[in-house]
Amino acid sequence: MIIELFQPILDENKHQVIHFLNGLETSLKFEYKVVYNKPLIIIYSKDIGLEVVNLLKDRFPEIKKITVFPKDYKLVSNTWKQEKTSFLVDDIEIGGDLITTIAGPCSIESEEQIFSTAKFLASIGVKFIRGGAYKPRTSPYSFQGLKEEGLKLIRQAADQYHLKVVTEVMDTTLIDEVSKYADILQVGSRNMQNFFFLSELGKTRKPIMLKRGMYSKIEEWLLAAEYLLSGGNEKIILCERGIRTFDDIVRNTMDITAIPLIKSISHLPIFSDPSHGTGNRDLVAPVYLASIAAGADGLLVEVHPNPIEALSDGKQSLNLEQFENLTLKANQIAKVMDRQMDTEKYLSIIHS
Amino acid sequence: MIIELFQPILDENKHQVIHFLNGLETSLKFEYKVVYNKPLIIIYSKDIGLEVVNLLKDRFPEIKKITVFPKDYKLVSNTWKQEKTSFLVDDIEIGGDLITTIAGPCSIESEEQIFSTAKFLASIGVKFIRGGAYKPRTSPYSFQGLKEEGLKLIRQAADQYHLKVVTEVMDTTLIDEVSKYADILQVGSRNMQNFFFLSELGKTRKPIMLKRGMYSKIEEWLLAAEYLLSGGNEKIILCERGIRTFDDIVRNTMDITAIPLIKSISHLPIFSDPSHGTGNRDLVAPVYLASIAAGADGLLVEVHPNPIEALSDGKQSLNLEQFENLTLKANQIAKVMDRQMDTEKYLSIIHS
Amino acid sequence: MIIELFQPILDENKHQVIHFLNGLETSLKFEYKVVYNKPLIIIYSKDIGLEVVNLLKDRFPEIKKITVFPKDYKLVSNTWKQEKTSFLVDDIEIGGDLITTIAGPCSIESEEQIFSTAKFLASIGVKFIRGGAYKPRTSPYSFQGLKEEGLKLIRQAADQYHLKVVTEVMDTTLIDEVSKYADILQVGSRNMQNFFFLSELGKTRKPIMLKRGMYSKIEEWLLAAEYLLSGGNEKIILCERGIRTFDDIVRNTMDITAIPLIKSISHLPIFSDPSHGTGNRDLVAPVYLASIAAGADGLLVEVHPNPIEALSDGKQSLNLEQFENLTLKANQIAKVMDRQMDTEKYLSIIHS
Amino acid sequence: MIIELFQPILDENKHQVIHFLNGLETSLKFEYKVVYNKPLIIIYSKDIGLEVVNLLKDRFPEIKKITVFPKDYKLVSNTWKQEKTSFLVDDIEIGGDLITTIAGPCSIESEEQIFSTAKFLASIGVKFIRGGAYKPRTSPYSFQGLKEEGLKLIRQAADQYHLKVVTEVMDTTLIDEVSKYADILQVGSRNMQNFFFLSELGKTRKPIMLKRGMYSKIEEWLLAAEYLLSGGNEKIILCERGIRTFDDIVRNTMDITAIPLIKSISHLPIFSDPSHGTGNRDLVAPVYLASIAAGADGLLVEVHPNPIEALSDGKQSLNLEQFENLTLKANQIAKVMDRQMDTEKYLSIIHS
Repeated sequence: MIIELFQPILDENKHQVIHFLNGLETSLKFEYKVVYNKPLIIIYSKDIGLEVVNLLKDRFPEIKKITVFPKDYKLVSNTWKQEKTSFLVDDIEIGGDLITTIAGPCSIESEEQIFSTAKFLASIGVKFIRGGAYKPRTSPYSFQGLKEEGLKLIRQAADQYHLKVVTEVMDTTLIDEVSKYADILQVGSRNMQNFFFLSELGKTRKPIMLKRGMYSKIEEWLLAAEYLLSGGNEKIILCERGIRTFDDIVRNTMDITAIPLIKSISHLPIFSDPSHGTGNRDLVAPVYLASIAAGADGLLVEVHPNPIEALSDGKQSLNLEQFENLTLKANQIAKVMDRQMDTEKYLSIIHS
Repeated sequence: MIIELFQPILDENKHQVIHFLNGLETSLKFEYKVVYNKPLIIIYSKDIGLEVVNLLKDRFPEIKKITVFPKDYKLVSNTWKQEKTSFLVDDIEIGGDLITTIAGPCSIESEEQIFSTAKFLASIGVKFIRGGAYKPRTSPYSFQGLKEEGLKLIRQAADQYHLKVVTEVMDTTLIDEVSKYADILQVGSRNMQNFFFLSELGKTRKPIMLKRGMYSKIEEWLLAAEYLLSGGNEKIILCERGIRTFDDIVRNTMDITAIPLIKSISHLPIFSDPSHGTGNRDLVAPVYLASIAAGADGLLVEVHPNPIEALSDGKQSLNLEQFENLTLKANQIAKVMDRQMDTEKYLSIIHS
Repeated sequence: MIIELFQPILDENKHQVIHFLNGLETSLKFEYKVVYNKPLIIIYSKDIGLEVVNLLKDRFPEIKKITVFPKDYKLVSNTWKQEKTSFLVDDIEIGGDLITTIAGPCSIESEEQIFSTAKFLASIGVKFIRGGAYKPRTSPYSFQGLKEEGLKLIRQAADQYHLKVVTEVMDTTLIDEVSKYADILQVGSRNMQNFFFLSELGKTRKPIMLKRGMYSKIEEWLLAAEYLLSGGNEKIILCERGIRTFDDIVRNTMDITAIPLIKSISHLPIFSDPSHGTGNRDLVAPVYLASIAAGADGLLVEVHPNPIEALSDGKQSLNLEQFENLTLKANQIAKVMDRQMDTEKYLSIIHS
Repeated sequence: MIIELFQPILDENKHQVIHFLNGLETSLKFEYKVVYNKPLIIIYSKDIGLEVVNLLKDRFPEIKKITVFPKDYKLVSNTWKQEKTSFLVDDIEIGGDLITTIAGPCSIESEEQIFSTAKFLASIGVKFIRGGAYKPRTSPYSFQGLKEEGLKLIRQAADQYHLKVVTEVMDTTLIDEVSKYADILQVGSRNMQNFFFLSELGKTRKPIMLKRGMYSKIEEWLLAAEYLLSGGNEKIILCERGIRTFDDIVRNTMDITAIPLIKSISHLPIFSDPSHGTGNRDLVAPVYLASIAAGADGLLVEVHPNPIEALSDGKQSLNLEQFENLTLKANQIAKVMDRQMDTEKYLSIIHS
């Protein structure tokens, strides 16, 4: 249940509302949360009846509206907000009718690598570059990323070619550092239910791309996003990247159905990451196109000027030429779906 | 390893080949199989070296060619046959550049239901009607299908509207009966590793659509198809229909990646069943289109004149109008992928 | 809902009951089944209210009792039958307080192998020998079993040493043949939802051991057993053998919790197969003992006089000495659990 | 590969070793890590041959021993250390022949709750109390724990009854605070692959209990422990707590086989958490006993003086009497396994 007030009220007045509720129903202890800086009280209870809603309204004239939800997630749902979320990253739009492309290497490895990638991406109209500086690696002995040095490199490359930076923040203690360099903070699959970290991220105002945990049910993913929204951060992107199943012939099983499913229950933009979703260069292109046909609002893809020499995830990275060809095909599928790719204008000029 | 001979030889001569092999390597007992009516001996062993291949060729001049395989599956693989498999069902082609549409109700329920569906399908250019007469149901108390009466109804409806019949055969003892009425025998997800049954089906010459087991690894699925091919039946279609994972918000998790993956290792046509793959009418259309973008050679979809009253799977069935609209969009995606849908010609006439 | 009658009635009278029910609730079509040779009508509906129950009883005085079930499964549940099921296989008891041991090789391979195993098993008090004659193998090129020749061998060995035979029946067409030689028919993991086959097995009166499908939810497993019970066969054993999960470091993930869970909802005996449940000889013993501590009513285990030369599943087979030592420990755990192993008497004599 | 030196050397000398290696094999870049304060260089490479090992030894006389590993994990493996790890928490031993009991509520809720639990646990000989102060909850609106107030309460209760405290640390920023109050730091299932956090924990010298990720393969779990050991922390306990599978009739699927499997490849103590492993009070006891029979070195279990009123996980908590009865049975199983429970002495006095 969300109680919307006409205007922000003092904390003690919020407690009065809760106190009144707990008085009504002695067997329940209502757990609740107050959204920072907004006139909202969110109460965790699945079975509040119309009667209670009416009693509350009668007792507290400062209440504007009460919304009851069929599921645990609230702020992320269509019930709360009907129109699709879109927002600006500086001057670049995410969401709405536009399909966004985010491309770049798995890891930032060198100046030469990241600048050549940035130059190429800009040349075909891509607006967002991705690249990892802090890398989550299964073994402590694997390459762990260039860290802050990497962040500086991707920022410089992005600035030179007028791109926006998407990069992962791996830990609460790194939020400030990564925020200095990034335009969108990526939360990785293994951190998706790191709830303390999510609470801290909810306090920032940077856009966040929340990748689905490889083991997460759709409802758990939405509740992770709810941590961010209930903290007051509304610029949230969801990104499907494959789940773990019994078949390991590919790295993950891309859950293509998650794309239309999320669109049917949430107002948040839903992106697709076919690189992690398949783990295999030859399978990336078909799943990239399938994601657009299934309704994705954006794509995240690993592109490397020289995939064979990549320090991580080389097997699933496209080279620059493969990526350009794929983007051309993607533009055509987008048109059939009555959508527009962000690269459309550039590529139609180049190839006309 | 497959030993191809210049011409069929007597069984006792095949045994000589095996005897010779076993003599060479006393620690191995070579397991083998002879494909019915073909000059082939297939030997199950992962690690036969070039040396053994050469010894065999020297000893047996009746050997034309020896092929060694990196995986357990052999006849289904690209290593064995490079060109994509296509074949005729009477006069209708399956495979090749064409994308096939198979539509119809989950269960055959009544004359009225199956005839009205058939009439509609024919009107938009669909060539194959599906419908279950023997239904695999989790509970013994659920509707089990109309059985032979259902088979007669779908055959009559198909004949009246010049359609081909696709229907499931659930048991070895039903192969003859179902073969009388069906043009393509469907093997269901729960029977995919019913090996005795597969061996019997390999002896028939009816085309077979082998659905993926909801719990089956890609390699197990290919080996199930290998049972059919090694029995001598080459008209085999694979059909992805979703796998079972930890998330049950939808009925199955559609493994979209299976489509390009199968195409990269096998010559068999790969179809997609977004109805079982999603279990939810609203998700069928996006996953249908995504399957075509991912490279599917055909689609299997549940369509019912009145889904709300369906005796089984109503929740995932499209009504006739929804299906026609979907097919129009599908034709456009197919064109982007440089393919042709079987319904293209009809729908372009109707809607021009 | 199960309608129990005072005595068997004619089919047309059963239809009257259904007809009356359908008349009451025009929006529902009640699906139903009649248990062979028993005065029972079983109706598939989750939401029949007390009102309907009373209307039925008033209208049909031949009704003795109506039982409503919270779940889809009925005859297998504790709601239907409170006392634990136990039954005789000839003169040997299964179920009750006794813990049963079933041991033997994966495949019957030779006279020497099966007779030496049988002799050893008898010497330590085991009453049931297992061994496969028809083997379900993933590849068509693997050893498929000795077939009827194997059945004859295991029957002879069992008779000579006063053992009972447990062996798998893989197909409807093999039920008669296997029944000639076996005392308990085993249904394998891949056939657990082969519903037509289950219906046919329900008509036999042989005891059946139903292994859990590697992909089957507990409720689906119980409904598979319901096919057997609703056919009139009440001598059913359930056997947990591991499920398929994302971790493939072992062959299957043994679901130890299934043992107490089944005991809490069903009256059927629940056995454990740690050989398939782990797939690794060194892990069999700990999981064997754990199964007894968790409450298993019996154990199924692969034992081979010479595991290294086994034609199938050698990696997970115990040798005879390992098995004897394990059985000694098992007896001690059983005592702590206030149960008795069938081997207890013999082993305490040998080792005292 | 681990290069063990006769004594610690300067960082620049370590770099010389790596430089030499990279010079040998230009196509490989050896990734490596130096264990804090120890004369070890650990190199990540699967395929270093004997030749390279010998070249290294010849070139660097300061090398004492080189160990090559078959798998990615090294310090956690039996290859590195044969004897089982045991260590003291103050004066209480963990590991070795002793089986440890850790019990207490899911969440610390009140002074009364935690003191009454502590008193009871001490009375039956339990040495470790558990309880969460920071709770990882799927929804942001659920009770999130008493935080530092909770830590103070559990510390006071433990001190009064001479118990040791086990509690979860959820975030890098909380390590210092939680370390002030806890004797063993618990890492939860959702943080098991939070690698930055693991690196920071490796720097502490507090004992750590690393719960298995609900989605983690055994090898990933061992590599997570490798992060801790390669940081220099050797007091590590692994704790199996169930994994996520397709069957959701219970909260998690307890992977009982993980217990003997870990013991066969690692020297670390392996504990079992049947409360999360089953999620259901009635199933905890059988799985608790099964864990001991399978070889567990310790048990973690939720016990609450009044489970029905628990603020979290009440459904899976035992009450005090249930727990005492279970512990009595556990002692008997431990004896059969030639082990000793830490509660044995007390309970045999009470019940004699």
